[in-house]
Amino acid sequence: MPMQHDAVEVISAKRDQHELSDSQIDWVIDAYTRGAVADEQMSALAMAILLNGMNRREISRWTNAMIASGVRMDFSTLSRPTADKHSTGGVGDKITLPLAPLVAACGVAVPQLSGRGLGHTGGTLDKLESIPGWRALLSNEEMMAQLESVGAVVCAAGDGLAPADKKLYALRDVTGTVEAIPLIASSIMSKKIAEGTGALVLDVKVGTGAFMKSIDAARELAETMVALGQDAGVRTVALLTDMSTPLGRTAGNAIEVQESVDVLAGGGPADVVELTLALAREMLAGAGRSDVDLADVLASGRAMDAWKAMIRAQDGDPDAPLPQARESHVVTAPSAGVLTRLDAMAVGMAAWRLGAGRARKEDPVQAGAGVVWHARPGDAVTEGAPLFTLLTDEPARFDRALESLEGGYDIAPADTPFTPAPLVIDRVG
Amino acid sequence: MPMQHDAVEVISAKRDQHELSDSQIDWVIDAYTRGAVADEQMSALAMAILLNGMNRREISRWTNAMIASGVRMDFSTLSRPTADKHSTGGVGDKITLPLAPLVAACGVAVPQLSGRGLGHTGGTLDKLESIPGWRALLSNEEMMAQLESVGAVVCAAGDGLAPADKKLYALRDVTGTVEAIPLIASSIMSKKIAEGTGALVLDVKVGTGAFMKSIDAARELAETMVALGQDAGVRTVALLTDMSTPLGRTAGNAIEVQESVDVLAGGGPADVVELTLALAREMLAGAGRSDVDLADVLASGRAMDAWKAMIRAQDGDPDAPLPQARESHVVTAPSAGVLTRLDAMAVGMAAWRLGAGRARKEDPVQAGAGVVWHARPGDAVTEGAPLFTLLTDEPARFDRALESLEGGYDIAPADTPFTPAPLVIDRVG
Repeated sequence: MPMQHDAVEVISAKRDQHELSDSQIDWVIDAYTRGAVADEQMSALAMAILLNGMNRREISRWTNAMIASGVRMDFSTLSRPTADKHSTGGVGDKITLPLAPLVAACGVAVPQLSGRGLGHTGGTLDKLESIPGWRALLSNEEMMAQLESVGAVVCAAGDGLAPADKKLYALRDVTGTVEAIPLIASSIMSKKIAEGTGALVLDVKVGTGAFMKSIDAARELAETMVALGQDAGVRTVALLTDMSTPLGRTAGNAIEVQESVDVLAGGGPADVVELTLALAREMLAGAGRSDVDLADVLASGRAMDAWKAMIRAQDGDPDAPLPQARESHVVTAPSAGVLTRLDAMAVGMAAWRLGAGRARKEDPVQAGAGVVWHARPGDAVTEGAPLFTLLTDEPARFDRALESLEGGYDIAPADTPFTPAPLVIDRVG
Repeated sequence: MPMQHDAVEVISAKRDQHELSDSQIDWVIDAYTRGAVADEQMSALAMAILLNGMNRREISRWTNAMIASGVRMDFSTLSRPTADKHSTGGVGDKITLPLAPLVAACGVAVPQLSGRGLGHTGGTLDKLESIPGWRALLSNEEMMAQLESVGAVVCAAGDGLAPADKKLYALRDVTGTVEAIPLIASSIMSKKIAEGTGALVLDVKVGTGAFMKSIDAARELAETMVALGQDAGVRTVALLTDMSTPLGRTAGNAIEVQESVDVLAGGGPADVVELTLALAREMLAGAGRSDVDLADVLASGRAMDAWKAMIRAQDGDPDAPLPQARESHVVTAPSAGVLTRLDAMAVGMAAWRLGAGRARKEDPVQAGAGVVWHARPGDAVTEGAPLFTLLTDEPARFDRALESLEGGYDIAPADTPFTPAPLVIDRVG
């Protein structure tokens, strides 16, 4: 039972730039979960934290208090080691789809509790739900059995993990307090630590299409999360990866599933393959399996077998045709030359407005909607040739999607020198 | 109809140290009053304002938006000019009681809308309610008639004035956002400007028993409020006055009424007389009546006549005996010497714990409870002679009141040099 404190006392302490004590943090998270600290008190505290910060001890204690607000999962009875990945969210970020079966095929279990998308970044569950029959909700028993038999699960997080975080996240969303690195870090890490994974790789996106627009902010978030993971005994590393340009060649749901299947079949866009392998190597290293030849696992078809088994275990049909949008609209290149910029935010907004994403969490998404881009930065383009294909079931959506793409790309004369930006910018941990 | 904005947009702007636009301020105050901006959103904004500040234009607009949330009173039909006084709150601060009839006796109407006390500072209405029969609630018509006939009204503020402030003040009280100078200034001034007074004198207290502990903070608050008043066409000045030592010789309800009557009768403690005259001179100057001889108005009994008329007009009996506490306890001086310090907060807490004040706004107060001190700083004290008399109806309260007084005064050897601190520290405006 935490010591008794008072909401105004805790808020005032952070407001006046004092460190919060362990006892104050334990009390305020517990009291907020129980409803004894009101939303208007927690939002004032969140704003004070956003503006005055928290040190590493405070963030660690805050994270642990959120974990303690709910249940913890335990994978210690599994016969394999576990490793998980978390992305801070980007455009065209389908990496979980090829990554989870690839790592599972190497003998490491991947317990991936995922969310749905909100705004311009897609959600992994939304993408997988475009596969006929596939279901995101599993019981704990089903999840454990699938981890043992298939080695990979991608499913919805239950309400039992870090309920304080769930409540606080919804509050931050409406009170302008999302952008606090201590609160972002503790939100992500409380769920991942409660989930019970042995190793964790964080894909911290940076760039126009990411939540973190600057490398400094992304690095601070990565370092904070890696420290939290290590404090909790989870082997944690983070990669800082580019999200100025969208990943692959598609942003949507079914079209991203298709692109992921292409990667598992040995093809797919080079950047998606590169990032999948980079993250897989980190996950395997974290699980003590650095000896695996990933290229061989892909080429041999074992990763594709794990994919199909994973989809079937959740009642999906991996061989069924994927849904297609009813309408399409092609945007052609206005001039010839070289594509020097393709803005992730512009593409993400277009896909969202076509119906691939949602504005409110209760909205439905369209399985077939999205954007296909036919050139990536560095590619030559021909005047009049297709540059984008927009897909939706509702043609009234094309206009606003086209608006999103305006100014979202640059075509330079064909002889303009172009140096591609690195996809993996740095490694922390 | 204000332009449409969004709560997260307004909160984020202040969070990121931008100025809020007129349109954002108008929208957020109106939407909050209507319930379209939620408490948890307003508290996050209040914390951002507390930590990032507002400039003079923003504070002025914020104040005007709160005024616009309710009704405005209009005293232009009165035959006399109007002047009002506001104190930021202190211990033993009974000044309104002799001040309002004194100024009214000089031909200037005083429309004093007051509040009840909370915590260690007493409320003017609580003090007056110790007079048998006296009632604080008046209709607008009664108030206007009394201002015309008697010239002074002290009554409860109606719900119609600045309802946005009423809602926001209750929110700030529970969210650690009371201590924001822009919000304190706009809260006070929105009510005083909506009240419609022609001139206003602010008594900004500074010291241990005041809300503002430092002269710099008190001066910033005073300058902000004076500017707001002047912007609104109210002739406004502020005095910074000492609240390290409590005012007069009593803190309570009926005992402060008695001390006020003593002043009106030409006696009373020197500091209460000094501050009453200083504030009266400012009010008269603001109302264009600097020519009045205040000492004569007091000595002639005209101020006392105005007091009795004011009390009778609100159904009180100015000649009835005042309530007395059932129990008393005397604290004697532990040593002989000179009293060099008497702490306002210690005395205020003792009076509060004896039952003179309340912890929650729905609590009752005791009319007879309070503290009488028999020496003021600079006075000689004799070992074993009475230093304090504690008064309450419930003797169980003595122990906690005595605790409050511990360490609340210093007695030095009789030959210790003592320089009294000035009561009026500075004038702003």
